Amino acid sequence: MKILIINGANLNLLGVRQPEIYGCESFEVYLEALRNRYSEHVINYYQSNIEGELVNALQRADKSYDGIILNAGGYTHTSVVIRDAISAISLPVVEVHISQILAREEFRHISLIAPVAVGTITGFGLESYRLAIDYFVGR
Amino acid sequence: MKILIINGANLNLLGVRQPEIYGCESFEVYLEALRNRYSEHVINYYQSNIEGELVNALQRADKSYDGIILNAGGYTHTSVVIRDAISAISLPVVEVHISQILAREEFRHISLIAPVAVGTITGFGLESYRLAIDYFVGR
Amino acid sequence: MKILIINGANLNLLGVRQPEIYGCESFEVYLEALRNRYSEHVINYYQSNIEGELVNALQRADKSYDGIILNAGGYTHTSVVIRDAISAISLPVVEVHISQILAREEFRHISLIAPVAVGTITGFGLESYRLAIDYFVGR
Amino acid sequence: MKILIINGANLNLLGVRQPEIYGCESFEVYLEALRNRYSEHVINYYQSNIEGELVNALQRADKSYDGIILNAGGYTHTSVVIRDAISAISLPVVEVHISQILAREEFRHISLIAPVAVGTITGFGLESYRLAIDYFVGR
Amino acid sequence: MKILIINGANLNLLGVRQPEIYGCESFEVYLEALRNRYSEHVINYYQSNIEGELVNALQRADKSYDGIILNAGGYTHTSVVIRDAISAISLPVVEVHISQILAREEFRHISLIAPVAVGTITGFGLESYRLAIDYFVGR
Amino acid sequence: MKILIINGANLNLLGVRQPEIYGCESFEVYLEALRNRYSEHVINYYQSNIEGELVNALQRADKSYDGIILNAGGYTHTSVVIRDAISAISLPVVEVHISQILAREEFRHISLIAPVAVGTITGFGLESYRLAIDYFVGR
Amino acid sequence: MKILIINGANLNLLGVRQPEIYGCESFEVYLEALRNRYSEHVINYYQSNIEGELVNALQRADKSYDGIILNAGGYTHTSVVIRDAISAISLPVVEVHISQILAREEFRHISLIAPVAVGTITGFGLESYRLAIDYFVGR
Amino acid sequence: MKILIINGANLNLLGVRQPEIYGCESFEVYLEALRNRYSEHVINYYQSNIEGELVNALQRADKSYDGIILNAGGYTHTSVVIRDAISAISLPVVEVHISQILAREEFRHISLIAPVAVGTITGFGLESYRLAIDYFVGR
Amino acid sequence: MKILIINGANLNLLGVRQPEIYGCESFEVYLEALRNRYSEHVINYYQSNIEGELVNALQRADKSYDGIILNAGGYTHTSVVIRDAISAISLPVVEVHISQILAREEFRHISLIAPVAVGTITGFGLESYRLAIDYFVGR
Amino acid sequence: MKILIINGANLNLLGVRQPEIYGCESFEVYLEALRNRYSEHVINYYQSNIEGELVNALQRADKSYDGIILNAGGYTHTSVVIRDAISAISLPVVEVHISQILAREEFRHISLIAPVAVGTITGFGLESYRLAIDYFVGR
Amino acid sequence: MKILIINGANLNLLGVRQPEIYGCESFEVYLEALRNRYSEHVINYYQSNIEGELVNALQRADKSYDGIILNAGGYTHTSVVIRDAISAISLPVVEVHISQILAREEFRHISLIAPVAVGTITGFGLESYRLAIDYFVGR
Amino acid sequence: MKILIINGANLNLLGVRQPEIYGCESFEVYLEALRNRYSEHVINYYQSNIEGELVNALQRADKSYDGIILNAGGYTHTSVVIRDAISAISLPVVEVHISQILAREEFRHISLIAPVAVGTITGFGLESYRLAIDYFVGR
Repeated sequence: MKILIINGANLNLLGVRQPEIYGCESFEVYLEALRNRYSEHVINYYQSNIEGELVNALQRADKSYDGIILNAGGYTHTSVVIRDAISAISLPVVEVHISQILAREEFRHISLIAPVAVGTITGFGLESYRLAIDYFVGR
Repeated sequence: MKILIINGANLNLLGVRQPEIYGCESFEVYLEALRNRYSEHVINYYQSNIEGELVNALQRADKSYDGIILNAGGYTHTSVVIRDAISAISLPVVEVHISQILAREEFRHISLIAPVAVGTITGFGLESYRLAIDYFVGR
Repeated sequence: MKILIINGANLNLLGVRQPEIYGCESFEVYLEALRNRYSEHVINYYQSNIEGELVNALQRADKSYDGIILNAGGYTHTSVVIRDAISAISLPVVEVHISQILAREEFRHISLIAPVAVGTITGFGLESYRLAIDYFVGR
Repeated sequence: MKILIINGANLNLLGVRQPEIYGCESFEVYLEALRNRYSEHVINYYQSNIEGELVNALQRADKSYDGIILNAGGYTHTSVVIRDAISAISLPVVEVHISQILAREEFRHISLIAPVAVGTITGFGLESYRLAIDYFVGR
Repeated sequence: MKILIINGANLNLLGVRQPEIYGCESFEVYLEALRNRYSEHVINYYQSNIEGELVNALQRADKSYDGIILNAGGYTHTSVVIRDAISAISLPVVEVHISQILAREEFRHISLIAPVAVGTITGFGLESYRLAIDYFVGR
Repeated sequence: MKILIINGANLNLLGVRQPEIYGCESFEVYLEALRNRYSEHVINYYQSNIEGELVNALQRADKSYDGIILNAGGYTHTSVVIRDAISAISLPVVEVHISQILAREEFRHISLIAPVAVGTITGFGLESYRLAIDYFVGR
Repeated sequence: MKILIINGANLNLLGVRQPEIYGCESFEVYLEALRNRYSEHVINYYQSNIEGELVNALQRADKSYDGIILNAGGYTHTSVVIRDAISAISLPVVEVHISQILAREEFRHISLIAPVAVGTITGFGLESYRLAIDYFVGR
Repeated sequence: MKILIINGANLNLLGVRQPEIYGCESFEVYLEALRNRYSEHVINYYQSNIEGELVNALQRADKSYDGIILNAGGYTHTSVVIRDAISAISLPVVEVHISQILAREEFRHISLIAPVAVGTITGFGLESYRLAIDYFVGR
Repeated sequence: MKILIINGANLNLLGVRQPEIYGCESFEVYLEALRNRYSEHVINYYQSNIEGELVNALQRADKSYDGIILNAGGYTHTSVVIRDAISAISLPVVEVHISQILAREEFRHISLIAPVAVGTITGFGLESYRLAIDYFVGR
Repeated sequence: MKILIINGANLNLLGVRQPEIYGCESFEVYLEALRNRYSEHVINYYQSNIEGELVNALQRADKSYDGIILNAGGYTHTSVVIRDAISAISLPVVEVHISQILAREEFRHISLIAPVAVGTITGFGLESYRLAIDYFVGR
Repeated sequence: MKILIINGANLNLLGVRQPEIYGCESFEVYLEALRNRYSEHVINYYQSNIEGELVNALQRADKSYDGIILNAGGYTHTSVVIRDAISAISLPVVEVHISQILAREEFRHISLIAPVAVGTITGFGLESYRLAIDYFVGR
Repeated sequence: MKILIINGANLNLLGVRQPEIYGCESFEVYLEALRNRYSEHVINYYQSNIEGELVNALQRADKSYDGIILNAGGYTHTSVVIRDAISAISLPVVEVHISQILAREEFRHISLIAPVAVGTITGFGLESYRLAIDYFVGR
């Protein structure tokens, strides 16, 4: 299978930013481990801090992948356009979050993305990404 | 007259994206027909998925055009900065929407743009753009 | 085409009432100009200050017209029964407003009519009516 | 590892109840498949329609298991006492849902359980349970 | 001290845009005056209309500066990602606004940035920037 | 017994209007059947689309009837004056609705009439009227 | 002075309707007393249960009177069109209520009329009308 | 026909509990009268104070009855699981209430059950049960 | 009759403070005119900016007066204790306001005092006080 | 006197569960001390995690006791049926809580029980029970 | 022990004010009885109708007492400054109320004081004070 | 320049009260340092815990000062009368807060004073006062 992981704003700082919430492993190191574990599958990766570039990435991915794993970061709670992009493409999108967002500030309790995602996985740290891949490859 | 049509996020997918809501004609084809119908006027076109680029486009347009037709897409419901850009420039801006947004999800019922637009035209499919041009040229 | 324009409460005072919001042209004069411009079409007109009479007018219009242009005035924001009448008949109804209602008091931001109208045109002064006719005759 | 799956109200009807939402496989059949797939682990199962019995089950499980997978069904949205029971015990609890609850009626958007769960997995049909087990056994 | 001033959307139009709210001095001219007044300090400046570029600028500034003065413009009221970027870096950020935002439209009363800023200075026109610098250099 | 059935706005279209919600039997036909079934009782009927005429009908009915069956249609959700008229007269009023209004749009969930009615019967199609008569005659 | 008293819905039942709230004097008797007390002034009277007729009465009164005393009854809390009619005419309108509406049900706490009335007098029983006349004649 | 009446919490106290609201007849006595009146039909009865037992009763009833009459008592306003049980079974369920719940405390104004019930009958005292049976047997 | 006028916070500045809202006559001058007009009655006056002193004044007035005219100024919208003081004494209290408070900022739309006052008179400028006296002396 | 203490959900874990909130003494030990202190009175005890069993216990207690002390635990905030049971019986019920619930999560700020309880005692740890007994025996 | 009882606004009227809510015993008489009952302890008393004087009294009490019993009266629901004073001092404060405030008007349901008080005792009439003393002396 | 600093409730406890929020320097010591730093200006100081005395101080200051620095403490969030006093006088008022109030409890997020203040400075500890003086003297 060919899977694209898309990370949104500030997720380029994983391992550095607020380790008490996000842990201290960088995403690059974790991604390496994921690729080794699922070596028979292709796992591509894209990150941007710009909302519209995440929309562009979702639009581009259509046709080329079997599925998308999306952690939109802070845009999760405010972005109608990312939601619309998911509705506009035909690929299944799995929403993941590293932290348990429902246990944090109230403005993080709303996800505009969840209603148009296949499913949502939150709170397992970086393991949320592994479980999302398990969903795609384990069917 | 010289008119600029600005389309926001995901409107580059018209004709492909959710045809039951947005119809199955691409904007390029429709634009061609519009230009033929109003051949004595200049109708320019800009599209971006990036909120800030829409702000840039609005700022750039000031002085060079007689009017702007803006479909901000999903940014309609969340963007204070596009609203502020409209207030900051002196050009009349007409807000258009392809679908009848008040008949859709509740978060689409609020338009931050409408209060600073000259007027709003929603729900007529791509014909919303034609009516907006009619407004400018028919005065 | 045969089109019926229905105006609701207080719109009989156009040209007299609050000219800073509604302009100083009476609807009769404007209607005359509209009929001249679209002389190949029939444009009928009805006005009432009574909510239930607007319901009656909508029910009577069914079958006899190709389309209705409705400015329900202050009933726009409160009338379930006008909304129900539109749903009950099979004619396309276009909602128009002279002022940009989303830029006025908060209780004017809600339209019970918009979700069951084909489309909505607001803020262009009396020109909102012309654009509505353009929609019907320009298809 | 020793894992307890707790299912709440109406989940005894899986495969029968609203198959367009919950699918048409019974939980017993699915559980059998899960046990075969994870044959080196113990997977116990408890179901009740009574809120207080779910509290009892959570309290009893403490000490005897390595983890709990909880689908509280309709109690998810209203039960302070199940939330309190999770806080009161020291076992990690993973919340699962078969449907994407954030895409359904508004009263299903609130989970009182999520803030005290390790993580949440929603929307993958019965596969939500497999991913939860993957979390426990794959660490 | 080395201080970075970051201005968000539409603040490149200062002096031109709505002078009754924002005054008629351009930011470049004011910046020149500021640099003269605090000539023993380094004051750098960055402006963008793109939310994600403001995030990039905040991330880049980390380590290189003693403090940041941020006027996020319209993003102040909607941007979770700028808030997250401030939390993610270790630099002190002072929030400034030219107008008294609490005296304007209701959607401008909420600042997502204030809770993670060291402090907030609003309403003093361009002088808000000077007071922010006074805070850094006067300690 | 002498009973008055009062129907509000758009209920003159029963059998024609939205048959998927209101069924396809006209009220006149149904009324005939009702009168046959309860031939020992007098069942009078009044319908108007005008809110104030419904108030007039309620006021006039006082003294002359043993009970009123009222389906105020869309006025149910907005009319303080019909509520006040019921409070002002001494006749028992039973509220009926053809559809299950609590299963429809949110603005239909509120009934201003229910708190001053003897009782409410909703959702049984035209049979709601029969049950209301059963209440009066079966006591 | 020439003053018009306009009474809205159900106020024709004064003296009969809920005497514990509205007292047991009919408006006709009270009006007679008022006219005797202010015999040098003309006091006309109009009552209707129909919202749109109250609008008509307000429009007709313009030019012919020095002031209007309006008790819109239950329409006070819901009628945008009566409010608009008051804004549309140039006569001063004093709002009166017999009961202290702020001490009753919550839906009676909102008056759409008050913001466009010269002043409001509530809670003095029928004496509210006398005080309103005192305002006009005592200036 | 075979009909099951299910009564929820505290309805075992009918005739004893708050007679000013619920009357002073016990349900057993009333049931006897009902059975006599509809002697050609089977009317079974179940009562429990436990929410989950009401779910169990609804699930068990499926297949064995032609219809269910449900008064969930206080669970009406809070129970998602009873609602889900009604959705899960294929029997028609009629909701009844003895008192006019919309005229009582605000938390009793919401019924989670009504949207999934065939119809609702409230406020007629114990006669609400008779009308519900009339619905089933009178079709 | 013996009447006490109590004025709350900032009303000592009448004639000076915001004359576009409150007029330019000082209360002392107006009071003089009132006393002349009602020379057969005793009109005492008390003003304080301190909420608790207004409570003290209300408590002291009990027994010694026939009625109180209270303009609590800004305390109108927030003071539970003044409300409680009015409930605690047996004197009739008439609430007055100089401006039409329902036409001003939203936080001025709520009066905690109105529900326990005999009646309320707002919007007539200083004449509101005269009408309140008319109420007491004209009965 | 004969007093019944009823404890709701999760209170069987006192001394074990979250000692930072609930302390580390088990209820059994504390109860022993209470009985010694008030040895001339009968203090019975009942605990259940099941909402409906708490209703059963309240119903059973009627007639046999002089008073009830009720800590409904998490059901405090959601249970209409326990509230109804208290209203249905004639015994005085004192509500107690170990923690100061108004200082905890927002969903714990609402008590459905308090409005029908004689009084409420919160925040004194297990001493809340002693004070409740003091109320009964000290009168 | 040395205990200070502080009573807020209108509590000087106990025994006189609304006896159906507050009873007909004056606080002075009750205080005498309390002092006799707890003759080995010092019980001082302070009352004021002025919010700021209650703050002063709390600040003065610090250091000199073992505990404070505070009934802030109507200030309970609105006073941030009394709450802040309690947080600012190191003495334990017990909040008491004579009536069951949660059973009264909605604006009395919020206590700003409870979250910073040791505990709260409401609804026992004047006995609420005795229970508060029992808390201090019975530890 | 002549500047008056007004401190509201509990600010007399600075240095003692909650040092983790307000620091451990007393205002008197800090004021001394301020006066030394701005020795060419007059800086007067007033503090009161009584809301109405703060109103008195604001009224008295008019005419005698060039500007006011106001920290209303807890009254910031509730006081309409202090807001009105600021509107009533002609002096510029700068609002300051020691802590970043938008990062604290939700009831502290609203400032009734900010909309009528020249500007607001929050979160810089006692330095907020220095920056406010800088504003006045640095113009």
